[in-house]
Amino acid sequence: MLHLIKPSVRAQGAYTLAAPVARHKLNQNEAAEDLDPALKAAILERVATQPWHRYPEFTPRALLEQLGAHYGWDPDGILVGNGSNELIQAAMAVTLDRDDAVVAPAPTFSLYRLMAAVLGARYHGVALGPSFHYDLPAMLAMVQEVAARVLVLNTPNNPTGSTLTRAEILHALESTPGLVMVDEAYVEFGGESAVPLLAEQPRLIVLRTFSKALGLAGLRFGALLAHPALTREIAKGKLPYNVNLVTLEAAAVALGRADLIAQRVQRTIATRDRTMAALRQLPGLTVFDSAANFFLVRSSVMPATTLFQRLFDEYGILVRDVSTGAGLEECLRISVGTDDDMDAVIAALATLQGGTA
Amino acid sequence: MLHLIKPSVRAQGAYTLAAPVARHKLNQNEAAEDLDPALKAAILERVATQPWHRYPEFTPRALLEQLGAHYGWDPDGILVGNGSNELIQAAMAVTLDRDDAVVAPAPTFSLYRLMAAVLGARYHGVALGPSFHYDLPAMLAMVQEVAARVLVLNTPNNPTGSTLTRAEILHALESTPGLVMVDEAYVEFGGESAVPLLAEQPRLIVLRTFSKALGLAGLRFGALLAHPALTREIAKGKLPYNVNLVTLEAAAVALGRADLIAQRVQRTIATRDRTMAALRQLPGLTVFDSAANFFLVRSSVMPATTLFQRLFDEYGILVRDVSTGAGLEECLRISVGTDDDMDAVIAALATLQGGTA
Repeated sequence: MLHLIKPSVRAQGAYTLAAPVARHKLNQNEAAEDLDPALKAAILERVATQPWHRYPEFTPRALLEQLGAHYGWDPDGILVGNGSNELIQAAMAVTLDRDDAVVAPAPTFSLYRLMAAVLGARYHGVALGPSFHYDLPAMLAMVQEVAARVLVLNTPNNPTGSTLTRAEILHALESTPGLVMVDEAYVEFGGESAVPLLAEQPRLIVLRTFSKALGLAGLRFGALLAHPALTREIAKGKLPYNVNLVTLEAAAVALGRADLIAQRVQRTIATRDRTMAALRQLPGLTVFDSAANFFLVRSSVMPATTLFQRLFDEYGILVRDVSTGAGLEECLRISVGTDDDMDAVIAALATLQGGTA
Repeated sequence: MLHLIKPSVRAQGAYTLAAPVARHKLNQNEAAEDLDPALKAAILERVATQPWHRYPEFTPRALLEQLGAHYGWDPDGILVGNGSNELIQAAMAVTLDRDDAVVAPAPTFSLYRLMAAVLGARYHGVALGPSFHYDLPAMLAMVQEVAARVLVLNTPNNPTGSTLTRAEILHALESTPGLVMVDEAYVEFGGESAVPLLAEQPRLIVLRTFSKALGLAGLRFGALLAHPALTREIAKGKLPYNVNLVTLEAAAVALGRADLIAQRVQRTIATRDRTMAALRQLPGLTVFDSAANFFLVRSSVMPATTLFQRLFDEYGILVRDVSTGAGLEECLRISVGTDDDMDAVIAALATLQGGTA
């Protein structure tokens, strides 16, 4: 029966991830620490008294107001989703017809390509420049060449940590007639948000997630911000009731304690910066700039697959081997965990690279 | 910027639902009763100790085994989703290209049409027969006429409660070269499941949900059952990590107490049957056969919109006004709630119809 599946789908590998258990889990760019137990308890208490057999709110008005205040944007121009992935998918589904073109950086988050394939769209990855900096002129030239309907910008970009400035995003908007979808999954850790551009830019879509800085990857929550006329259409590509009642409560409670989130983010940034500085002292290790809660390293001492395996086997450190990605030869991606996690990374790499910690 | 939205999407109205608060909420075919408080507590206890900042399991193996045992099907041929809607969407997304044809009953669950529109597919609703019984020959003739790639069967069908037998579904499979997608959202309340056909039918997809009989509408959980080679492809149309950690725990705990679910279903069936029998005694009210946890009524005493409003305003009873649907002139859909809910419905309709309770 596989002839009934679209060829563009069959041609794609599935999105998979082996998930071995590790003492230091640094492979998914998750928050370094779990939510405060008191916040968890507050959420669960609110959840226990709700009717679980009822559908969640169709439009979670109070939460949209909270999100509007948090991000500084019109609540009518915000959609919530079961993770930002769902909202990226919805935005692509309502705009991309078969053979329409999408332009995105290469390397970047792999789901954009898979989603485009499911829609039968043509996907054009444009290589980043030296040291993985964005090559915006090359991207804009490609947008023009293929008449792209959607330009995807991921800033800071996964897995490189590269950023675009707000001025560059504005330039991109002014240089393309299509939609510009800016995925800001990691923006709390560095770089500039495009949200202040929304008021003047009806072709701009900004995606935010609660899976990274907000520490709720297990609960799945994300938001899409755009002009209300645009979110009204994107909503048609999204299923109703997709955010469950627990996640709605968790998002509300987490937003209510933005101070705790900001503190955690500051700790992660400090940990990242000192870790990268320490690793840059090691021989034979290139540590690439990153504004996110992860960074790329490349070793000249041993192949990436060997380094990955030895970190896991000998030190209980699980990172992401991204070395098969476009332009990512011999690279590993390391998420910024706790100070304890990163001390383990520094010590392990010092030994493996033959330097001193 | 709306020219960047696909015309097929712009032409659709959004899926919306006004949600007034009512003493007797009988508008969404939810379970009549909330989950047992002890089960809720067990779920929340398991959830409290989990790391919320970590992504949920990529493949929830233990839960898939549990589902396999529950439904009697190979766990490798089961996908879990954030509600069955997500899985219907994924199945349609990997099969339906622009201008491909889908055939479905009319009336039926409105999301199939919206999902088809987002994909740019042609949607052909085939009218049900007299008293809303399925007209399978007419549907199969349409499948042939439009060379449908997907035939959607919803049994019991929402909002009519009509069913197809397993033999009829087998006949449909043997009469079409495409996929047959059987949505069994309400099958616990009546009708025959197509699951026993799966072993011999690689073009069959069966959808199940935890939002109705299992009473977890607020948590969003559903499953898709098909041949493992087919689920492998459908998985590519589905986003990873889409079922959050709370829902994974809730599904596992609920499945572990299938006895409680079965008891609740039996209560609902008994309540439905006595309610329908009582309403059939009232003058000027047609009560249509239904195998689901809802049923259609049509009044000859007053227009459906009036009856809907008076039930709400005068009795605090919220039902669904479906009277604008295809072939549903003057019909209201009433979900089967608790005995208390249904006593209120019987008393209200007795008064409004001018009979005796």
